[in-house]
Amino acid sequence: MELKYKGKTKDVYSIGGNQVLLKFKDDVTGENGVFDPGANTVGLSIEGVGKSGLRMTKHFFELLKTKKVPSHYVSADIEDVSMVVKEAIPFGKGLEVICRFRAVGSFYRRYGAYVQVGDHLDSLVELTIKDDERGDPTISKDTLSMLGILTDVEYEALKQLTKTICRYIKEELATKGLELYDIKLEFGRDKATNDIILIDEISGGNMRVYKGDKYIEPLELEKEFFK
Amino acid sequence: MELKYKGKTKDVYSIGGNQVLLKFKDDVTGENGVFDPGANTVGLSIEGVGKSGLRMTKHFFELLKTKKVPSHYVSADIEDVSMVVKEAIPFGKGLEVICRFRAVGSFYRRYGAYVQVGDHLDSLVELTIKDDERGDPTISKDTLSMLGILTDVEYEALKQLTKTICRYIKEELATKGLELYDIKLEFGRDKATNDIILIDEISGGNMRVYKGDKYIEPLELEKEFFK
Repeated sequence: MELKYKGKTKDVYSIGGNQVLLKFKDDVTGENGVFDPGANTVGLSIEGVGKSGLRMTKHFFELLKTKKVPSHYVSADIEDVSMVVKEAIPFGKGLEVICRFRAVGSFYRRYGAYVQVGDHLDSLVELTIKDDERGDPTISKDTLSMLGILTDVEYEALKQLTKTICRYIKEELATKGLELYDIKLEFGRDKATNDIILIDEISGGNMRVYKGDKYIEPLELEKEFFK
Repeated sequence: MELKYKGKTKDVYSIGGNQVLLKFKDDVTGENGVFDPGANTVGLSIEGVGKSGLRMTKHFFELLKTKKVPSHYVSADIEDVSMVVKEAIPFGKGLEVICRFRAVGSFYRRYGAYVQVGDHLDSLVELTIKDDERGDPTISKDTLSMLGILTDVEYEALKQLTKTICRYIKEELATKGLELYDIKLEFGRDKATNDIILIDEISGGNMRVYKGDKYIEPLELEKEFFK
């Protein structure tokens, strides 16, 4: 198995047949030892976070499969802390698609003149380009089109797919008394078919979840969710 | 005449009849003594800059009037360095509408992974909220709608109006051998009719203009333009 790419929270191995193996690690993004799903640097390492993230990811990808959501998910091996996925080609140098149900984090930092912390947002979708050096700037539909990253049609498809997926995830969390505030998804083109598919992971590491007014840390989230 | 509002580069006086008088000042925005149309602080004061800005503004608003572009412009008095305009209500707490023909400034700082400095852009429109404290963040169509600042219909109208206006301004500058790289406009609702109208000024202070590969400073621009 050849190491193809060493990521911040996952390593990617080539296994052939338009598939790759993702090995989940115990690193999470954050700054100064504090977990922050929006951060670009690995802030801390927590034993078991990889396995925890994979359990959540497996659960949600399998749920989304029953909802006919196209994704890269093939199978997951919890003990090996790895997941087999379809190989995908990113949009441009990588996009992050954020879906917001509450005004927190960078959204509140930008639009605090118009919202209070925690105000409800109706599955508001924002896109950012993956660019650590430039702080992952947000990018508009028109700019994505002009820079040749996404066509207008692809943008609208991605936005609608994001809203659909995130509503399923929000509902699923709600069955456990948990509330999704915001979540970051990634999409790519299926290398074999060119279809737009959901990629990456779906876990505490890329969502903000509250129980009542208490923020649930990623590792706690898995415990809460599966208890 | 009652002082209504003291701005960074203009003061606003009430004169009644849904009109106000704008008194242009000799202050320009910038940082560390260097002019930057995108900056939020008054960086320097240059004698004659107010009158220079008003001459440009008068010229362009009168040009746009012949093109049937709706604006706040009523009349200008160059000697008094003042302009009478229709009173307008801003969108939210104020929006800036940027039209880009070349990738420079904050656009390049954000999307430098996808563009080279000076790359052509086809009248790309970006909106930012006026919020000095938060660095005038860009804002998307969906966010403007969700925060109740602009409806989708108003957004599209504003975008098309901006493209039209900026193409006129670009063509006019081109007749003097000058090239418009980017420009910042402001719009509001006419207090008397509620129509969307172009407000503020149109001068070196809110555009980046080059002659060949040489950047033309705002005060120089007026000299080049009227010579």
